[in-house]
Amino acid sequence: MNILIINGPNLNLLGARDPEVYGKETLQDIHAELREQYPDHSFNFYQSNIEGELINCIQEAMKDDTDALIINPGGYSHTSVALRDALDAISIPKVEVHLSNIHGREAFRDRSVTGAVMNGIITGFGKHSYALGVEAIERLTQA
Amino acid sequence: MNILIINGPNLNLLGARDPEVYGKETLQDIHAELREQYPDHSFNFYQSNIEGELINCIQEAMKDDTDALIINPGGYSHTSVALRDALDAISIPKVEVHLSNIHGREAFRDRSVTGAVMNGIITGFGKHSYALGVEAIERLTQA
Amino acid sequence: MNILIINGPNLNLLGARDPEVYGKETLQDIHAELREQYPDHSFNFYQSNIEGELINCIQEAMKDDTDALIINPGGYSHTSVALRDALDAISIPKVEVHLSNIHGREAFRDRSVTGAVMNGIITGFGKHSYALGVEAIERLTQA
Amino acid sequence: MNILIINGPNLNLLGARDPEVYGKETLQDIHAELREQYPDHSFNFYQSNIEGELINCIQEAMKDDTDALIINPGGYSHTSVALRDALDAISIPKVEVHLSNIHGREAFRDRSVTGAVMNGIITGFGKHSYALGVEAIERLTQA
Amino acid sequence: MNILIINGPNLNLLGARDPEVYGKETLQDIHAELREQYPDHSFNFYQSNIEGELINCIQEAMKDDTDALIINPGGYSHTSVALRDALDAISIPKVEVHLSNIHGREAFRDRSVTGAVMNGIITGFGKHSYALGVEAIERLTQA
Amino acid sequence: MNILIINGPNLNLLGARDPEVYGKETLQDIHAELREQYPDHSFNFYQSNIEGELINCIQEAMKDDTDALIINPGGYSHTSVALRDALDAISIPKVEVHLSNIHGREAFRDRSVTGAVMNGIITGFGKHSYALGVEAIERLTQA
Amino acid sequence: MNILIINGPNLNLLGARDPEVYGKETLQDIHAELREQYPDHSFNFYQSNIEGELINCIQEAMKDDTDALIINPGGYSHTSVALRDALDAISIPKVEVHLSNIHGREAFRDRSVTGAVMNGIITGFGKHSYALGVEAIERLTQA
Amino acid sequence: MNILIINGPNLNLLGARDPEVYGKETLQDIHAELREQYPDHSFNFYQSNIEGELINCIQEAMKDDTDALIINPGGYSHTSVALRDALDAISIPKVEVHLSNIHGREAFRDRSVTGAVMNGIITGFGKHSYALGVEAIERLTQA
Amino acid sequence: MNILIINGPNLNLLGARDPEVYGKETLQDIHAELREQYPDHSFNFYQSNIEGELINCIQEAMKDDTDALIINPGGYSHTSVALRDALDAISIPKVEVHLSNIHGREAFRDRSVTGAVMNGIITGFGKHSYALGVEAIERLTQA
Amino acid sequence: MNILIINGPNLNLLGARDPEVYGKETLQDIHAELREQYPDHSFNFYQSNIEGELINCIQEAMKDDTDALIINPGGYSHTSVALRDALDAISIPKVEVHLSNIHGREAFRDRSVTGAVMNGIITGFGKHSYALGVEAIERLTQA
Amino acid sequence: MNILIINGPNLNLLGARDPEVYGKETLQDIHAELREQYPDHSFNFYQSNIEGELINCIQEAMKDDTDALIINPGGYSHTSVALRDALDAISIPKVEVHLSNIHGREAFRDRSVTGAVMNGIITGFGKHSYALGVEAIERLTQA
Amino acid sequence: MNILIINGPNLNLLGARDPEVYGKETLQDIHAELREQYPDHSFNFYQSNIEGELINCIQEAMKDDTDALIINPGGYSHTSVALRDALDAISIPKVEVHLSNIHGREAFRDRSVTGAVMNGIITGFGKHSYALGVEAIERLTQA
Repeated sequence: MNILIINGPNLNLLGARDPEVYGKETLQDIHAELREQYPDHSFNFYQSNIEGELINCIQEAMKDDTDALIINPGGYSHTSVALRDALDAISIPKVEVHLSNIHGREAFRDRSVTGAVMNGIITGFGKHSYALGVEAIERLTQA
Repeated sequence: MNILIINGPNLNLLGARDPEVYGKETLQDIHAELREQYPDHSFNFYQSNIEGELINCIQEAMKDDTDALIINPGGYSHTSVALRDALDAISIPKVEVHLSNIHGREAFRDRSVTGAVMNGIITGFGKHSYALGVEAIERLTQA
Repeated sequence: MNILIINGPNLNLLGARDPEVYGKETLQDIHAELREQYPDHSFNFYQSNIEGELINCIQEAMKDDTDALIINPGGYSHTSVALRDALDAISIPKVEVHLSNIHGREAFRDRSVTGAVMNGIITGFGKHSYALGVEAIERLTQA
Repeated sequence: MNILIINGPNLNLLGARDPEVYGKETLQDIHAELREQYPDHSFNFYQSNIEGELINCIQEAMKDDTDALIINPGGYSHTSVALRDALDAISIPKVEVHLSNIHGREAFRDRSVTGAVMNGIITGFGKHSYALGVEAIERLTQA
Repeated sequence: MNILIINGPNLNLLGARDPEVYGKETLQDIHAELREQYPDHSFNFYQSNIEGELINCIQEAMKDDTDALIINPGGYSHTSVALRDALDAISIPKVEVHLSNIHGREAFRDRSVTGAVMNGIITGFGKHSYALGVEAIERLTQA
Repeated sequence: MNILIINGPNLNLLGARDPEVYGKETLQDIHAELREQYPDHSFNFYQSNIEGELINCIQEAMKDDTDALIINPGGYSHTSVALRDALDAISIPKVEVHLSNIHGREAFRDRSVTGAVMNGIITGFGKHSYALGVEAIERLTQA
Repeated sequence: MNILIINGPNLNLLGARDPEVYGKETLQDIHAELREQYPDHSFNFYQSNIEGELINCIQEAMKDDTDALIINPGGYSHTSVALRDALDAISIPKVEVHLSNIHGREAFRDRSVTGAVMNGIITGFGKHSYALGVEAIERLTQA
Repeated sequence: MNILIINGPNLNLLGARDPEVYGKETLQDIHAELREQYPDHSFNFYQSNIEGELINCIQEAMKDDTDALIINPGGYSHTSVALRDALDAISIPKVEVHLSNIHGREAFRDRSVTGAVMNGIITGFGKHSYALGVEAIERLTQA
Repeated sequence: MNILIINGPNLNLLGARDPEVYGKETLQDIHAELREQYPDHSFNFYQSNIEGELINCIQEAMKDDTDALIINPGGYSHTSVALRDALDAISIPKVEVHLSNIHGREAFRDRSVTGAVMNGIITGFGKHSYALGVEAIERLTQA
Repeated sequence: MNILIINGPNLNLLGARDPEVYGKETLQDIHAELREQYPDHSFNFYQSNIEGELINCIQEAMKDDTDALIINPGGYSHTSVALRDALDAISIPKVEVHLSNIHGREAFRDRSVTGAVMNGIITGFGKHSYALGVEAIERLTQA
Repeated sequence: MNILIINGPNLNLLGARDPEVYGKETLQDIHAELREQYPDHSFNFYQSNIEGELINCIQEAMKDDTDALIINPGGYSHTSVALRDALDAISIPKVEVHLSNIHGREAFRDRSVTGAVMNGIITGFGKHSYALGVEAIERLTQA
Repeated sequence: MNILIINGPNLNLLGARDPEVYGKETLQDIHAELREQYPDHSFNFYQSNIEGELINCIQEAMKDDTDALIINPGGYSHTSVALRDALDAISIPKVEVHLSNIHGREAFRDRSVTGAVMNGIITGFGKHSYALGVEAIERLTQA
């Protein structure tokens, strides 16, 4: 499968920012691990801090042979109606992941505007949330 | 008149996304129809998924000979204070349009942050909302 | 087409009340202009300050040969569930219009209880909102 | 002065309904007392249970020689945007009165939609609220 | 018993409006059935789309020999403080009925402003809500 | 018909608790009266103070030959999502009843979480609410 | 009658502060006018900016021969539970007055915490609010 | 590892209730699949409709050699402070799972009271949510 | 006196759960201390994690010779209308106690649904809250 | 121990105000009883209606040999951030007491702004709340 | 310039209270530093825990030759409408300062009732907030 | 010090937009003034209308030798969780500034999502807010 993994704002800081909270691994490390763990899939990684570029990226995936989508929308998860509309428009299997448990933080992180249009959400397992996202994609496409 | 028509996020998907809801016509079709229907006006079309680029576009219009502005801010309509501030700063006739009736959908689409600073809003008439926007501009500038 | 134009409470004051805000033209002037501008349509005008009479009028239109409906529900727009139910029950093309931009006034005018069941809403263009309503009807019936 | 006194829904029941709360006097008694107490003024009394008829009555007063207006909007006080718009449109001195203290009852009676556009409000003094309204009118027109 | 049955706005449309939801029977059919099913009672039927006329009707019932009251306030149920005050003032057995289950629809239909002052409420049984209202009246007056 | 009548928490106290409010009859008396009044039906009575046991009871009814369900969920009516899910899963005719008028008490009793998934609700008629529930069932199954 | 007139915070600024809004007369002028207009009453005037001193003053009035109380609680009107408790404890006739119409200003001035325990409230008549308060006291004690 | 899998109210209905939504497999099927897919783990399955029994089960797990906990709290997820306190007290790895995407349903399902004290939440993948929960446990204990 | 002491969900974990917060003593230790400190009273201790069993226990106390009731409803304190109804129905002296200060924790613990129907509440004194509850009972029965 | 007992606004009215609610004893009687019941402690009593004087009193206690603090903040309990800050700054054992059960009155008394920073709160036991406060202090200092 | 610096409740505790949060310097130290740093200005310092005394102080400044005002309203900042009215009435340059960042603390500190009527607000710079306030005054009076 | 000054959306319009509100000076003028007033610092200026570019800019500053950060986030201040996360991740001294007093405008400008993670906020002093920001940085780095 061709799996697109999209990371939203500030996730490029992984490893540098609060390593005791988010772990020492960088986003590159996580991507490398995914490639290693799931050699049968072809991964496409994208990161941007710009809301509209994330939307562009999702729209591109509508045109090419992307089979599934995993997105960590970061802070845009809680506010972006535009990102939600883009995710709603794409009909491949799609999973939202978060590093930290969004239900156990500030109240404004409790709501996921984008999550409502996804197949499912995986939140709170650190870097493992991504791998669990791949597992979820595999299972969704088998069912 | 020089009329600038700005389209926000995901409107480039028109025709491809949910054709039974939004119609089969693309944004290009709509633009072509406008040119055909209103040959006396000169149209300038712009679309971007990026909030700040929409703001840039509005600011550009302050400097050139744009006479009127029609905007469909898409999902940013409900959240963007920055876009509102940009629209508030430009003093030419300005109309907000929406394809679907924003009052008949999810509660969070009920409020238009940007609409409060426009001359008026036209919502719910599909592709016709744009043409009605042009009619509105014509009437506003006659009055 | 036979078009019914319904005006709610206080709209009979047009021209007399706050002319610097609402213009100097009376409701009669607006009606006359519509007849003049759209000679191909047959107009039926109704105004009442009484919520239930507006409902009666809408129900009458269900029985005769009215082809389309334009309503400015005035203050009832923001509160009347009963008016909404009446508008919901009639299945001809229907457009809500407002003279002033309801999104740019007091917070309680922000919500349109009635608007949610209309084809679309046109708000903020003064007397032109009515003419734009007729244009919208024409386009809705062509589509 | 020509003073118009308007009474909203259910006030025609005065004397019959809950006499231990609202007193034994009827609306007619109150009107007679006002005429007796203020022989120099000419009073015009109106009561209706129909929201739109109250609006009609206010609009009539805009055309004749009414000098001041006292209104007890009853239950419409808390909900009617349309009545508020009518009261806002008339520019003679205008006072809202209530028999019972609206701040000491159910929460939904706490807000006066209509009161915001009046010169002032007198609430809680039983039948005396009307007489105090006349006194207020006298003082407002002297000032 | 003399039973007054009051129907609020849009209930005169029964049978014509959304028959798959509300049934094919008209309000006249329902009334006829009630007369047939309960030949020992004398029924008085009233319908109006006008809020204040419903209040007038309730006040009339205070003066004549009406023994009990069944009301379907329609859309006014959720907004009318004035109707509530009228219902509160009459001390005969009184029951509110609704055709559809008001708790299973839009959020704004969840609250019954008028229901709080009734003996009880019956909601969701289609045309049978009226007959159940008569049964309730019979039982209330026996107890 | 086999009718299951379920009573939630504290309803076993009927007759002992606040007799001036809830009447002197016990739940047993009410059950006996129902059997007497409706000899053609077979009744099955259940009462528990335990939320999950009420759910168990509803699930049991899905397996046996229960034809209809009447439930007074007591305090769980206003809070239990789990009970609502159980009621939603059973597809026989189902009616919620309350002894007192839930709309005329504390604000937190105003909402019925469970009621939204029932055919209808009957509230405020004391012990008669049960009998009216049986009448409602009869009519629902005839229609 | 011995009438105590209490003024809360900032009312000692009258005449100096925003004369175009509040009039040019000082609190002393208003007091003098009251003495002149109502020579049969004995007035006691008190002003303090300190919440607790206003409470002390009310408590003093419980012990001496004060017959009635008029209070303009200023800003404390909207927040002070303690002042409300003090006013609630005194059982002589008591009236709350405001210079400006509290319903026509910022939202936080809409609620009167103290007003709920008064006989009545008079708001919006400038300096005349005090005289109307005296009239109200006279009428309350006659009734 | 000894993994305890707890299912809350109504999950014993799986397969019978709305199979088009929740799938045709029963809870027993899901359990069997887990045993088959993860033969290296020892599973302990528990289901109850009774909130307190779920709490009891969690407390039992504190005393024995349970290594990890997966819970689908069903409807209690959104309301139960008591269940949250029990989950908070146990310090083994713990994951909350839901069959359907709780963010895409009624508003009251949007909040997870229990989820805030879990390691993470997996929601929306049907029966696969359980297997993903096991994968998450495996990864949490490796990290 | 015969004093019944009821403990709600998770209180059986005392001593094991967060000893630095709740102290090292178990519920048994606390019970033993109460017996030792108040040898003149006869104590009856009950603990359950099941909401309905707590209700059952309270109802049992209505039938036997229990003289007073102390309850720590734990997490049910903030949500259970059913438990509140049970406590409201019993007319012996009754005190609610909490180990921690419920006003100094998460917002959802701020409200005590059950506390509103108790004689009084004692919160924040750890194990001493129970002994203070006994003292309170003694004083309530003397007064 | 040197125990400071602070009483907020209107508590000096005890005995005079609503004796059927608050008892016939004055604050002086309560103080005398405390001295009599607890001869081993040295009491310091303070009462003021002035918010800032209560803060001054608490700050004084930070400088002298006060060992513990009991405060009944009256109406300031629900609104005063400043009083809360003062109580937060003093680190001796501190207990908030109320005569009536604050959870069983108006909604605005439900929240205790000050209580969140106290060791604990005792509410609803009339004059006994003070003695229970002393018992609580004794137990807090032993633990 | 004559600059008045007003400090509200608990600020006299500076240096003694939580020195690790608020610094070791006392209010006297801060005042001395200001005098030293800005020898060209004449400073007048005032501190009170009493809301009304702060209002008195502001009113005094209206009468003398005070040129500018810096106020740290402490806890009153979030609740006092009366203090706001006093600050609104004085027309010299006025700046609100806070030691800690009020946006990064409890939710009830997020709103500044008083701040809305100031020229500007400086919050979060510890003792430096005062000096920055003086700089702000200097710049406001130059502009 | 190397100080980075970031300006958000629409601030490039300064001087052109509402000069009577925001002053006639452009952003370039303000920058030039800062360079002139603080010759010892090295300034780096950045402006973008694009949310993600502002985040990029902040992330760049984490890698180079930027010593301090001043940001005017414009409209993003009130909505951007992503910008907040970026600001939270950078650990140099950081100050938020606003030209106008955000507490004295529309309600939606009252909250600063970004401000909660800054050292402090300076709001309302026009162009001087920037210079005060530099002063604040200087003092923060000295302390």
